[in-house]
Amino acid sequence: MYRIGIDIGGTQLRAALLDDDMNIIDSFKTINDRSLSGAANMDRIIRYIKSVDEPLQGIGIGSPGPLDLKRGVVVNPPNLIGWDGFEIVRYMEQKTGLKTWLDNDANVAGLAEALRGAGVGYESVAFIGISTGLGGAYVYKGELIHGAHSCGAEFYNMIVNDDKYCHKGANPGSLNETASGTAMQRLATERFGREMTPKELFEEFYKGDETAKKILEETSEALARGVANIFYTIDPDVYVFGGSVAIHHPWYMDVVKKKAMEYITADDILIVPAKYDDDAGLVGAALLVK
Amino acid sequence: MYRIGIDIGGTQLRAALLDDDMNIIDSFKTINDRSLSGAANMDRIIRYIKSVDEPLQGIGIGSPGPLDLKRGVVVNPPNLIGWDGFEIVRYMEQKTGLKTWLDNDANVAGLAEALRGAGVGYESVAFIGISTGLGGAYVYKGELIHGAHSCGAEFYNMIVNDDKYCHKGANPGSLNETASGTAMQRLATERFGREMTPKELFEEFYKGDETAKKILEETSEALARGVANIFYTIDPDVYVFGGSVAIHHPWYMDVVKKKAMEYITADDILIVPAKYDDDAGLVGAALLVK
Repeated sequence: MYRIGIDIGGTQLRAALLDDDMNIIDSFKTINDRSLSGAANMDRIIRYIKSVDEPLQGIGIGSPGPLDLKRGVVVNPPNLIGWDGFEIVRYMEQKTGLKTWLDNDANVAGLAEALRGAGVGYESVAFIGISTGLGGAYVYKGELIHGAHSCGAEFYNMIVNDDKYCHKGANPGSLNETASGTAMQRLATERFGREMTPKELFEEFYKGDETAKKILEETSEALARGVANIFYTIDPDVYVFGGSVAIHHPWYMDVVKKKAMEYITADDILIVPAKYDDDAGLVGAALLVK
Repeated sequence: MYRIGIDIGGTQLRAALLDDDMNIIDSFKTINDRSLSGAANMDRIIRYIKSVDEPLQGIGIGSPGPLDLKRGVVVNPPNLIGWDGFEIVRYMEQKTGLKTWLDNDANVAGLAEALRGAGVGYESVAFIGISTGLGGAYVYKGELIHGAHSCGAEFYNMIVNDDKYCHKGANPGSLNETASGTAMQRLATERFGREMTPKELFEEFYKGDETAKKILEETSEALARGVANIFYTIDPDVYVFGGSVAIHHPWYMDVVKKKAMEYITADDILIVPAKYDDDAGLVGAALLVK
């Protein structure tokens, strides 16, 4: 049998046909048109699905959160204008006749890594995705641990220091405010006195700039504390680091690990880079199909 | 069938005969004689076990950590003089002919709460024991989550703020240094200028003392951050609070919850007091027997 994986993003929507071994047979990409509703955007994906000739077992969707997983609803993700309250699971099931599963983008990426990527063979996998935001997933014995309120592995909101800065409702002193790409951007913009992206911050660092060095010291220290706190809660077999920051600056992950080991009582922990880059969302979404 | 539960403490050792429903049929208590080795101390427990007439399935032991669970060894707990490196599991199996299981005291207490106490009926249970130290357990689908290095649910070492104080190797800014009974004692002793126990600190608080109030504000704030961090990692169905501080000052747990809710995105979380007090160790140890 075959399955459809869908990766919803703020600027584009992707869908793919995958076989049972999670090979991507073909894929489809379209813009996320912000002048249209979520349903109208998904209609283009639905036309792609209907064009598929293979027998389909179901559809898996990865979407930015917050989501209501029990009801299959996109709640109000800041990057998905026009998608508020969209009952995406019901809509897809009605329009395609295929059973549909939904989960957030970080969980889906973590599932792809745990079952088909860098975490294969480990019972307990923590995925940490560092890009604009900071996403996470905890996969135990092959299953995502969502928790009672679907807040399991929402590492972005974990508190690691006394910083007071608080952005859009994430906790002050949380990983989102101290270790994410957004945090890098804020600190760089503040201290350089001009708008600066994480990419530009790293460029300044590579030129030997002391301010950039200091900022990355602080963000890596915060993330190291996050790794230690994950260690002292679930002590996973492996930590998979994904997301653009992790993928483009592998040495940064080494710095995080070195700092984390100062807080960790074990002789060593296993940190590995994600195997998937862009395709994690498609593969992980397809893995939701049961 | 019946089983033996053993609770090892710094000042006393307890053992009990339990039936399959974890009823304590009879129990035995003896001092932990610090002039003797661990083996010599356990010999009194072994004599009790040999006096039991009922058919026995095995022995479960809860001990202060650190332990080497894979080898069944007591490593070097600060409160167990003379027990360093004691191969307790092998010793008990050789002397009694009964299969023996070992786990740390907080895990054992958490298991008792999850399977027979305040956490019954929930899939995912976080146990937080606040007494001199700060112990934890994470029970998922009836099983203790130990993690790759047996550091799962070692919440005492979770980092929640920038405090610099560091005691006996726990992390600076960790729950052990900011929220445990030891932390209360340290802060009270520093600020009152005289040696003061957590019990005396609470007595000062009940008299309306402002310094005591301030200290408990700080310790409850630190613990609230710990609860939030557990929430954003495993989001358990229920948090069971045990240990002397939690049991004797239930209002304090309400304060912790109220502060934690400021950091938590869910509408509510479920915090309940432990059901067991002194017997958690015996019942939980017996539950290790498979």
